[in-house]
Amino acid sequence: MKQNIYDNPVFFKKYIALRDSGITYNDFVEQPAIKSLISDLTNKSVLDLGCGTGHFSTYCIENGASRVLGVDISKNMIDEATKRNRHQRIEYICSPIEDISLANQTFDVIVSSLAIHYVENYTKLMKKINSALNENGQFIFSTEHPLTTSRKGMNNWILDENGEKMHWALDNYQEEGRRDHTWYVDGVVVYHRTISTLINTLIESGFVLEQVIEPEATVKGLPKLPKLINERRRPSFIIIKAKKQSQHNE
Amino acid sequence: MKQNIYDNPVFFKKYIALRDSGITYNDFVEQPAIKSLISDLTNKSVLDLGCGTGHFSTYCIENGASRVLGVDISKNMIDEATKRNRHQRIEYICSPIEDISLANQTFDVIVSSLAIHYVENYTKLMKKINSALNENGQFIFSTEHPLTTSRKGMNNWILDENGEKMHWALDNYQEEGRRDHTWYVDGVVVYHRTISTLINTLIESGFVLEQVIEPEATVKGLPKLPKLINERRRPSFIIIKAKKQSQHNE
Repeated sequence: MKQNIYDNPVFFKKYIALRDSGITYNDFVEQPAIKSLISDLTNKSVLDLGCGTGHFSTYCIENGASRVLGVDISKNMIDEATKRNRHQRIEYICSPIEDISLANQTFDVIVSSLAIHYVENYTKLMKKINSALNENGQFIFSTEHPLTTSRKGMNNWILDENGEKMHWALDNYQEEGRRDHTWYVDGVVVYHRTISTLINTLIESGFVLEQVIEPEATVKGLPKLPKLINERRRPSFIIIKAKKQSQHNE
Repeated sequence: MKQNIYDNPVFFKKYIALRDSGITYNDFVEQPAIKSLISDLTNKSVLDLGCGTGHFSTYCIENGASRVLGVDISKNMIDEATKRNRHQRIEYICSPIEDISLANQTFDVIVSSLAIHYVENYTKLMKKINSALNENGQFIFSTEHPLTTSRKGMNNWILDENGEKMHWALDNYQEEGRRDHTWYVDGVVVYHRTISTLINTLIESGFVLEQVIEPEATVKGLPKLPKLINERRRPSFIIIKAKKQSQHNE
C-alpha cells in the first residue's frame, strides 16, 4: 500500500505553509541545484514526476517548454496545482508516479524533485522513465541523500551538553528499504537506497550518467535560513542528471 | 611535497606484516570487489597504479594479461615487488602515480587499488589515465569511501559506555582536501573528495561511468575477521568502473 502523506490534512496544511514561506531547503538548496542542471527547455516536452503544487511545471513553461505533464500521488496537491498553476500547456494527473500510464507519450525532459525517495520500486520507475524519454532525452532528479536516509530510528545530529551539533550520526548504510521518519507527523515512509544502487540501477536501465550534485545552500539563502550552513557538514540531497543512452552507441 | 608513507620503516614493516597475514580488509572486502569488476584480461595490457608488492600485477598475468606495468611511489614496495612478484611480462617503476611518464605507451586496462586517496590532484590524474587508455579501455579503481575520509580530526565510531559501537560520526563532508589520519603512525595524509567530485571529474575527463560498488565483507571473510560486519553499517571503500568514452559517440 503506497503512502500518500500529502493527503494527510495535518501534514498537508503544514507543508503548504512551509513552502509558501519561501524560506525552505527547497528554495535555497534543492531547487537552485536541480535548475542548474536543466539545459534549454525551448520547445521541449516535459514530464514532472511529483509535481506538487505545480510551481516547477510553471517554471518549465516560463522557460519555453512546449508542454508539461505534471503527476502527483496527492489529490490535495493536484487540486492546489490546478488552482495555482493552471496553464493551457500544462496537464495534471493524480497518480503514484511509478504507476502512471503514459500510453505512447514520450518526453524530451523528465524531472522529479524530491519524490523518488517515496517510491519503493526504484528499478521499475527507472525503466519506466527511460522508456518514456525521446532519443537523447534528459532525466534530472533530486532525492534525499543516502547519508540522510540510512540510519534506522532516525538520522540526526548528535548534540553536546550545550545543544551544539557535534557530528552527524550515520548507520545501517547497506540496509536498503523502508524508513519511518517524523516530519510534521509520525510515520512518513521513505526508502533508503545506497549511492551504488541509485547509480547502477540508473545505468542498467539505459541511462548514461552525466552529473551528480550534492548541493550546499546558496549565498543568498544562507542569511535567511542560517541552519543551512549544516549542509556543508553533510548534504541533505543528491541530484542526478542522466541522458537516455542512444541505441546506436551500443 | 608528496608523502611517501610506505617508505616510513615503522609503517612499512607493520603494513607488510598485516598484508602477509592474509586477514585484512583488502582480502575480504576490497580485492574481491575490484576483481569482480575486471572483465576478461586475456591478451590485455595493464597499468597497475599503486602496485605495492605486485600481488595484483601477478594476478593480472595469471589471468591472461599480455603485460603489466606496475607503478608505486615507494622504493620499499618496488623492491618487495621485484623480489616477490618478478615476471618477464611485468615491469615495475618507482614513481608517484600522478607523475608517471608513460611516453606514448597506452593500455587496455588501468587499475588502481587504494592509492588514489593519497593523490592531491585528482583531476590531473584522471586526465592522465584517460589519455593512457586505448579506445574502449577500462579503468577500475578503489579508494577510501568519502564517508570514511570526511570528518576532520578523525572519522570514527562513537562508542557507548560498554564500548559498543553506537553509530559512525560524519562531518565536514563538503570540505575537500587534506586529512591527517593515524594508521600505525601519525600523520598519514589522505585527501577527502565528495562522491560528486569523484564522479563528475571522471566524466569530465572523458570517461563513461559503468558501475559503482560500495563493498561489504565476503561470506568467507566475515568469520575470520568479525569486525567486518561493520561494513554493513558504513562502507570503508568505494570502487568505480569506467570506460574511455569513444571519440565517435560525441
